[in-house]
Amino acid sequence: QMPRGNLETVHHRALVLAQVRKWLDCLQFKEAFECMRKLRINLNLIYDHNPKVFLENVETFIKQIDSVSFINLFLTELKEEDYTKTMYPPLESTNVCELHDSAGKKVNLICDAMRTAMENISTTKYCLSILTSHVKKSPPELETALQRIRKLREQTPITAGSVSAEEALKYLLYLVDVNELYDHSLGTYDFDLVIMVAEKSQKDPKEYLPFLNKLKKMENNYQRYSIDKYLKRYSKALHHLSKCGPEHFSEFLNLVVDQNLFNEALKLYLPDSQEYKTVSYAYGEHLIQKHLPEQAGLIFFRCGAFERALGAFLINGNWQLALTAAGELCYTEDKLANLARSMAGKFVEKRKYTDAAILLEQYAKDYEEAILLLLEGTTWDEALRLIYKYNRTDILETNFRPSLLEVQKNHLAFLETQKAAFSCHQKRLSVVRELKQQARNEMLDLELPNCPESDLFSDASSMVTASDASSKYTHSNSRISARSSKNRRKAERKKHSLKEGSPLEDVALLEVLGEIVRSIDNLKGEIHSLLKHLVLFGYDGRAQELQQAFEETLRLVEQSLLEIWTPDLQQIPANSILGPNSTANSISAAYNQQKTMAPASQDPEFFIPPKLNKSIQWKLNLLQ
Amino acid sequence: QMPRGNLETVHHRALVLAQVRKWLDCLQFKEAFECMRKLRINLNLIYDHNPKVFLENVETFIKQIDSVSFINLFLTELKEEDYTKTMYPPLESTNVCELHDSAGKKVNLICDAMRTAMENISTTKYCLSILTSHVKKSPPELETALQRIRKLREQTPITAGSVSAEEALKYLLYLVDVNELYDHSLGTYDFDLVIMVAEKSQKDPKEYLPFLNKLKKMENNYQRYSIDKYLKRYSKALHHLSKCGPEHFSEFLNLVVDQNLFNEALKLYLPDSQEYKTVSYAYGEHLIQKHLPEQAGLIFFRCGAFERALGAFLINGNWQLALTAAGELCYTEDKLANLARSMAGKFVEKRKYTDAAILLEQYAKDYEEAILLLLEGTTWDEALRLIYKYNRTDILETNFRPSLLEVQKNHLAFLETQKAAFSCHQKRLSVVRELKQQARNEMLDLELPNCPESDLFSDASSMVTASDASSKYTHSNSRISARSSKNRRKAERKKHSLKEGSPLEDVALLEVLGEIVRSIDNLKGEIHSLLKHLVLFGYDGRAQELQQAFEETLRLVEQSLLEIWTPDLQQIPANSILGPNSTANSISAAYNQQKTMAPASQDPEFFIPPKLNKSIQWKLNLLQ
Repeated sequence: QMPRGNLETVHHRALVLAQVRKWLDCLQFKEAFECMRKLRINLNLIYDHNPKVFLENVETFIKQIDSVSFINLFLTELKEEDYTKTMYPPLESTNVCELHDSAGKKVNLICDAMRTAMENISTTKYCLSILTSHVKKSPPELETALQRIRKLREQTPITAGSVSAEEALKYLLYLVDVNELYDHSLGTYDFDLVIMVAEKSQKDPKEYLPFLNKLKKMENNYQRYSIDKYLKRYSKALHHLSKCGPEHFSEFLNLVVDQNLFNEALKLYLPDSQEYKTVSYAYGEHLIQKHLPEQAGLIFFRCGAFERALGAFLINGNWQLALTAAGELCYTEDKLANLARSMAGKFVEKRKYTDAAILLEQYAKDYEEAILLLLEGTTWDEALRLIYKYNRTDILETNFRPSLLEVQKNHLAFLETQKAAFSCHQKRLSVVRELKQQARNEMLDLELPNCPESDLFSDASSMVTASDASSKYTHSNSRISARSSKNRRKAERKKHSLKEGSPLEDVALLEVLGEIVRSIDNLKGEIHSLLKHLVLFGYDGRAQELQQAFEETLRLVEQSLLEIWTPDLQQIPANSILGPNSTANSISAAYNQQKTMAPASQDPEFFIPPKLNKSIQWKLNLLQ
Repeated sequence: QMPRGNLETVHHRALVLAQVRKWLDCLQFKEAFECMRKLRINLNLIYDHNPKVFLENVETFIKQIDSVSFINLFLTELKEEDYTKTMYPPLESTNVCELHDSAGKKVNLICDAMRTAMENISTTKYCLSILTSHVKKSPPELETALQRIRKLREQTPITAGSVSAEEALKYLLYLVDVNELYDHSLGTYDFDLVIMVAEKSQKDPKEYLPFLNKLKKMENNYQRYSIDKYLKRYSKALHHLSKCGPEHFSEFLNLVVDQNLFNEALKLYLPDSQEYKTVSYAYGEHLIQKHLPEQAGLIFFRCGAFERALGAFLINGNWQLALTAAGELCYTEDKLANLARSMAGKFVEKRKYTDAAILLEQYAKDYEEAILLLLEGTTWDEALRLIYKYNRTDILETNFRPSLLEVQKNHLAFLETQKAAFSCHQKRLSVVRELKQQARNEMLDLELPNCPESDLFSDASSMVTASDASSKYTHSNSRISARSSKNRRKAERKKHSLKEGSPLEDVALLEVLGEIVRSIDNLKGEIHSLLKHLVLFGYDGRAQELQQAFEETLRLVEQSLLEIWTPDLQQIPANSILGPNSTANSISAAYNQQKTMAPASQDPEFFIPPKLNKSIQWKLNLLQ
């Protein structure tokens, strides 16, 4: 609202702004400032109009204004916002050099420049403005402001025109909340300052004086710690407390644990001190509770708590570091063997047979069991090596050959089920696609492009039922059951529903087909190794059978790739749409069609055929 | 061309075909046949019109036709082609049950059915037609035909209406080339038959009689072998030769090697026979020459040629099987140690430090060297384990700590170069995209949608030059040089040119950016392990530095993913194009734009952002 009254004070804003800009360009800050103040134009414009020029002429600005209260007015009105971009956009875009890079730092920049200038001219005169410039910064420099006030008090002979400490403090309290100022005064550890502020506050001296007296009696570091803790400045508190000697260490440790300051605490002591070890120990416990046993193990190990480190590495399953800890503990061979056996047992549960075998071979010296575990993990090469290393060729007949034959059988069965599942899902996919195509055609006939397509499928019948598909997944075989249970868990994690008629059933089918393709492709290395060892032991027929079955499965998959992952899933067949006879309608229709062909999904990788690993030469020529 | 002359013989073909079909439907084969023969309608139609009906009534057909020469005519005219689909399509599609599943087997099917029927009626009468049915099959059953002729000759009392062997042979020679028939007669191992054919041929008796006489004098199996070899039937030849006893074994072996018949040859002998071993040995040599040393090793091993097997496995680098062969050879510890050392040396060249370390530790008992190799391969856990297993904690100070620090430095340098390359390519990508957008706008303005865009870029300048980018790739560091040389080789394999202005430069940039992202993402495991061991040995500062640098690099990459792999690279932003105001032109223009946005490529994976492995918790909480 404009000031009412004399008509001659009514001005056209655009004209006024133009005039203000002109004044600013000529560095006539006084004219500009007074006009802006009178007409309530935001003072930020003085800077925003041309930041570079303003910063270069801060002293001129101050000298022209020549008023503490006006400068305070200017400083308190400062905001990060660029007013030439929001409230006062220039009429034509001028080539003002851009200094807006320092985004979010405008106010601090001006405050610092103004303070430097004012200090050059007269610290005494601009005392209150300098305080304002400290307070306006973010974060506010309240402690510096308080220090300045304390200095004022020390300059007892008051010169003409200077402000008393009393007055300055009063002004500061007008700008800042008294409790906040009290806390910051405490933070300077300067009790004179604290009392000065406290006296100005509404606080009860019976309350703060005993507290301050108690603090005053303390040893210097402990006093500072107490203040820091009161102010919740825990890092500083920790630092001061660490200097208070061993009698305060338990207090130190409590603070570390309560405030989770382990890393800071460790930096305050030498690695071979007892305190370092105690903090480390507490840190390790903390990390174990946070379910980070490996990192706990590292901390324990570093501080020499090897027993605890061993335990932590065991929880984590890092057997090499566990053995390292055991080495530091000078375990006897027997004790090492027991440790190895117990770790091996856990690895067997997790089907990590190779690690388990190394433990049993090298630490428990149980060669036979090690070899049997390698066979369980179908690590034929390594099993053979140990058999010959330890002269246990008897195991070739008792276990190696039977294992080979069993695994060959399992692989054949697995390939069979995967092939069946693949064909079943592939058939269903073409049914779903045909249904969608039909629905699309009907939609186009009806010219109702926004009709929700999903409803059209909900009761669509099909040739293959879901139970058909899932029943073929069940493996009778124990050795492969781990893989299948992993598949099952994977299936549960699937994002799209395979349920018949679900709106994204085709995406779900693509997903599961992709998984089958990958699971088959991943077998190449394993089957190659198995084929080699079947041949080595003369089972050429079995090898041939497996090679043939795998080859057929791969051929089936490869032949279907292009049919399942049709090229139009991935890109736009532009030519077919934009012919010479195309109309807006025909193009739009084709577009909608594509939209439904490749339903928008956040997982575009489903629409890309899985890449088969062609670099593995899994086939044995001698079986062809 | 129709027969000229009497006008009444001119028929309308469609009418005739309709009549023929009617006759065939009523099983009036004779009427149909004569009409077709006169009017030169292809006789295949008799079958093709309704295959099922024809096959069920073959005897009726033969009895109605009742003429050897007509039946021969019918048989010789048979072709795999379905004439109802090509030459004589039916007027309306009738529901003739489809029997065309047996694609490519039509002629054989008819020949067999006809022969069975003719044999039922009269083998004597239809002798020549039966011969025809053998010859028409594919492949022709010439030997069976010849056997039939020989049988004829044996039935010396010639019954009325029967054909003499002489006549039959003459007829056969009319159907088949005499030399082919001669070869096939040899293949029956029946010299009477051979001479019978030879006499009919133009062959010089002075030529073939000595050959036949020589054969006649041979032992039975050797004779058959000689004939098979002459006829180039090598598998059969091998089979017969294997029965000729040990004096012919060298001949056998030559045949096996010459004709690459190793697999067949091995099946002819028992695995523990000397012959089996000799063939295996030759097979192994052959496989080595074919650069399949591992399979050669398997063959050598199987036949007990362990020295050769060891050599083959060494070429292949399969150290476990090489040691297995050494085990069979009962190597002494010294010899095993030497073998292990030499294999380890090769693995070090290939940077396979873990394998090399196992060899040195377990066979050469050189624990120190094994540990140093593990350090070289940055396998910290395993190195620590061996240090404690063999009580060599001195290595911690001499090598372990220095290695940790060096690798930390290398990683920092590598991250720096990758970051620089990433930023450089990313900047260039946005330049290229902008240029393409400009070109596209110009193109649309000109309404010349077919103008080849690539020319517009060929001399486009840019902020970043290619040499800038490549110079930043060079690593000064030896430890990472293996990785970088791998990158270099990869770069050479790139499909798209990174050269500035090349038409698919943006795709090339996407490719190389994707590779950098993956190479950084792949470091997670390695860096996690390094961080752990830095902390374990108290290098918290170094660990912190690395963790921070890696975190920053990952953040940089992650933040840029969406900017580089914009969603419109992968799918069609349909809404923006098909608004209510769209016209054929605007849609078409938008379409063309998309075409250039995502240039058609056979590698859609470039357009999909690389997936970062979020499952690895590489960061150490205790460093935060």
